[in-house]
Amino acid sequence: MWSNAASCPARTAPTASIRLELLAGVTGMSQRSELARELTRALIRCHSVTPQDGGALAVLEEQLKPAGFAIYRLRFSEPGAPDVDNLYARIGNGAPYLVFAGHTDVVPPGDTAAWRFDPFSAEIAEGEVWGRGAVDMKGAVAAFTAAALDYVATHQPLKGSIGLLITGDEEGPSVNGTVKLLQWAAKQGEHFDHCLVGEPTNVEALGDTIKIGRRGSLTGTLVVHGTQGHVAYPQRADNPIPHLLRLLTALIAPPLDDGSAEFDPSHLEILTVDVGNPATNVIPATARARFNIRFNDLWTPQTLSAEIDRRAAAVAGGARYELSFDPCNALAFVTARDHFTDLAVEAIAAHSGRIAHFSTSGGTSDARFIRNYCPVIEFGLVGATMHKIDERVPLADIDTLADIYSEILERYFDQAPV
Amino acid sequence: MWSNAASCPARTAPTASIRLELLAGVTGMSQRSELARELTRALIRCHSVTPQDGGALAVLEEQLKPAGFAIYRLRFSEPGAPDVDNLYARIGNGAPYLVFAGHTDVVPPGDTAAWRFDPFSAEIAEGEVWGRGAVDMKGAVAAFTAAALDYVATHQPLKGSIGLLITGDEEGPSVNGTVKLLQWAAKQGEHFDHCLVGEPTNVEALGDTIKIGRRGSLTGTLVVHGTQGHVAYPQRADNPIPHLLRLLTALIAPPLDDGSAEFDPSHLEILTVDVGNPATNVIPATARARFNIRFNDLWTPQTLSAEIDRRAAAVAGGARYELSFDPCNALAFVTARDHFTDLAVEAIAAHSGRIAHFSTSGGTSDARFIRNYCPVIEFGLVGATMHKIDERVPLADIDTLADIYSEILERYFDQAPV
Ligand SMILES: [Zn+2]
Ligand SMILES: [Zn+2]
Repeated sequence: MWSNAASCPARTAPTASIRLELLAGVTGMSQRSELARELTRALIRCHSVTPQDGGALAVLEEQLKPAGFAIYRLRFSEPGAPDVDNLYARIGNGAPYLVFAGHTDVVPPGDTAAWRFDPFSAEIAEGEVWGRGAVDMKGAVAAFTAAALDYVATHQPLKGSIGLLITGDEEGPSVNGTVKLLQWAAKQGEHFDHCLVGEPTNVEALGDTIKIGRRGSLTGTLVVHGTQGHVAYPQRADNPIPHLLRLLTALIAPPLDDGSAEFDPSHLEILTVDVGNPATNVIPATARARFNIRFNDLWTPQTLSAEIDRRAAAVAGGARYELSFDPCNALAFVTARDHFTDLAVEAIAAHSGRIAHFSTSGGTSDARFIRNYCPVIEFGLVGATMHKIDERVPLADIDTLADIYSEILERYFDQAPV
Repeated sequence: MWSNAASCPARTAPTASIRLELLAGVTGMSQRSELARELTRALIRCHSVTPQDGGALAVLEEQLKPAGFAIYRLRFSEPGAPDVDNLYARIGNGAPYLVFAGHTDVVPPGDTAAWRFDPFSAEIAEGEVWGRGAVDMKGAVAAFTAAALDYVATHQPLKGSIGLLITGDEEGPSVNGTVKLLQWAAKQGEHFDHCLVGEPTNVEALGDTIKIGRRGSLTGTLVVHGTQGHVAYPQRADNPIPHLLRLLTALIAPPLDDGSAEFDPSHLEILTVDVGNPATNVIPATARARFNIRFNDLWTPQTLSAEIDRRAAAVAGGARYELSFDPCNALAFVTARDHFTDLAVEAIAAHSGRIAHFSTSGGTSDARFIRNYCPVIEFGLVGATMHKIDERVPLADIDTLADIYSEILERYFDQAPV
């Protein structure tokens, strides 16, 4: 029985399940599209701002369990970070094992009054579903869940395994999510052959971009120590601010590199400069700056911090300063092309008509953790409205994305050695 | 009757007066020295951290009133600044009118545990009086009060007038002190011919420096507006910090000038830079800096702010920024040499053996207000320990300073037209 009450269980009474097999013939569209759309809306209705789950994982469990997936709900804790609910699901025992990865948590909606609709209402208007997480990335989670359910329902016995790796901590500190989920899975002996992350990768139109890697991210702190004094007697003081200007200027130019085969140039941004001196007659004792570098595969955190050290030392003069770097958990990586990247491009072309461009640009994602376990690519919706007011996704894009994921499953297992 | 109980009246029971005429023959030293030393100690014992008077003005009034000075105690108020007690005293009706100016308020003692003695105990050790305000400037107030009392006691009838202009707001906001006291005096029809401010002017030894002017002080704010964004997408943002680095670098160099006949070069110090961005993945929207310029007589606040505007505009590129300046109440000024400056040098040389250097260096002082009413010079103790832990003054310096002020009074009225 089909029910429109496919709402977030945290907000309403227990819902009737949306089951793939029950959707047959209800509408003109495919069962897969119907399910992907309804799951997108059900997930958006869950208030899952990091670290809240808001019932989002239950929406998925409710679909996956009856279809035969083994479900593991994993809540991870660590002092200093909020507890987070995660979900791991697998069907099949054999190889190859293709895992879809994603997150159901979302960034805060911001000024809800500025939204056209309640950001958790999943209204449909002008052919789009509106709401926080529509493209980043509840729509993609819904699409690959629908694709997996469809594939499982029509391809028994399975030739390999299909898994889902769903975290609730991607938009937050990323401490109690994917990292711990991967460690847990490895301990259970789970071996992934390939992973597809459903982050919004497309820039202009669905199908234009696959991410095959990400830049690394390194954050550093520069503290300059001067000698406090009265502005009327500068010769008795040593103002740290001119030293800081000189050091920071040396850090931002010249460019770190010109880019590499797969990557844009590395880039340093000064995040903040803070002295906090309220007086108009006092030369401050200390000046502090923070900076972040998005770096490509020409660098490791070690070579990069050495370069920053070198640049600072070259212009330091007599300045007393300290350069330090935050622990780096985002190294630059790129996934080698193989039959999986090829079939992804083919599947995307088949349903979107676009030849996807391989990209390594943009921010970090959980792919930086997954790549330590198996080759990983990322492909999802169009990112234009992500993290913004009026985030929304065309219904047609949800349909197409579910089609592409299905095509990837078809080709992946068709090409697998028997 | 001489009494050692010359304490601050705020701290002890009503004290016996120290009267000049009663000191005769008690010790081998001059009555003037004895009084100057005891007044220094009595003033230090008053807890007169700005804006508290702590009984300091009463210590002076107690000496001046019986000697025939007309005493005006003036408490000024203004919203946003603490009320402050001030004192104006005058003896004589005729010209010329020489006014001594000073303040009895002091800066806070800081870590009192770090002091060798209680900073308000006025202990004597190793030939020095120890305590907050010893050199800035209770010692000088005591010295010119003693000199004035001595002169009045021995030069009747007076040839002109002697005044004291004592504020309790020099180390604070300077709102309810000298500015209002001068306005009040002008309204009463008081006309000063010359003023001597007893601020600590000497660098190494008593007699080495007279201040004949002060640099001006102008404080400005530079705000750069960028466009906030994600560090991973710098092309969609405009980081204001590199713009700020460029603008500030242009502000601090090249030097504003090479100095003038009477002044050191003007000097700009960046006071603070504040962005306040706590995030490691966000390019901030705004960056703000404050700076202060100590400027010489080659500049007015108008020409100086125009030069700063010009320097910023020259390197602004496309940066959106605002430059603004705080109201300026400290213009550069220099007092023309006349018979008063000459006799001051002679008097200093006669008692210290040093030919005082005319200086315009250092911070601002209340002289910047007084100079609008009459020619003003500054001469006091040695500033080495001012505002520091263990501020202290040699007893010999108090004696010599009182001698110098007496000599100035002698010469000033001797040279006056009959
Ligand atoms: Zn995301
Ligand atoms: Zn002072």
